[in-house]
Amino acid sequence: MTDTIPSPATEAARAARLRELESELLAMPPVAALDLRIVESDPDHLRLQAPLAANVNDKGCAFGGSLTSLMTLAGWGLVVLRLAEAGLTAEVFVADSEVRYRAPVFADLDAVARLAEGESWDAFLDTLRNRGRGRLTVDAGIVLPEGGMAAQARSRYVAILKG
Amino acid sequence: MTDTIPSPATEAARAARLRELESELLAMPPVAALDLRIVESDPDHLRLQAPLAANVNDKGCAFGGSLTSLMTLAGWGLVVLRLAEAGLTAEVFVADSEVRYRAPVFADLDAVARLAEGESWDAFLDTLRNRGRGRLTVDAGIVLPEGGMAAQARSRYVAILKG
Repeated sequence: MTDTIPSPATEAARAARLRELESELLAMPPVAALDLRIVESDPDHLRLQAPLAANVNDKGCAFGGSLTSLMTLAGWGLVVLRLAEAGLTAEVFVADSEVRYRAPVFADLDAVARLAEGESWDAFLDTLRNRGRGRLTVDAGIVLPEGGMAAQARSRYVAILKG
Repeated sequence: MTDTIPSPATEAARAARLRELESELLAMPPVAALDLRIVESDPDHLRLQAPLAANVNDKGCAFGGSLTSLMTLAGWGLVVLRLAEAGLTAEVFVADSEVRYRAPVFADLDAVARLAEGESWDAFLDTLRNRGRGRLTVDAGIVLPEGGMAAQARSRYVAILKG
């Protein structure tokens, strides 16, 4: 999907939505424990970060569960934000995930989520509007400071229209 | 693998190992946040529990990331305990997971891990002793109080002998 250059008003609305989503996420005790922040978002990707200190394991690197939680939340947030931008109110659930752990992370955690290849926001939103339910595959990864991916997750999310 | 009836000394040693593993797990900040407890273990399964309050999401049920963390730790603990019983010192890593979320959990979290069908502890331990490295598939699930599974994870763990 090609987006036109956003107006300052659109940018401000997006920034407000990001802060609102961040507050909603941090209101959940297990997400507060991750100590995450939303650091970047456009209609096609969402980036979350979290400090290593809150997510460290016995080997001094990031706990695998934290990597997966952060990737799952990045994908979830991406879908939730896009639905809000489309003016739709829906519950979003993760249905399944395939996770690969490739390398240890000895730095703060940096997760990016984007739509999986072959998926379309337009098709997803159309199905959701027409059938009240839609399904979408999102790819998320933990980016290493030196480049490359420490972990990757391909997850399917289900959205169900409210009301 | 068929085990003989454990002696009281064996039982006491197992109980001590469980308390030690629990302490090691809770020393990691992201695991302390889960507030988990080891509630049951024998050579073929490990059961972990965690309160819903520490792991609740915006919908009043368990956060998916907590379910996956608990399942991953149950599998990891199962492998770590079996290695300790075999007198082996190894680092254990999760390599990948396939996770399915089937139903919301509105109760305290209850995770059970056991060896996947077709896997053998003896073959795993032999490979590890001979090659210094072994790989094992473990099935974990979140059990619902009313029966059935809320989530399932099939994970592969890699063990690397130390020293």
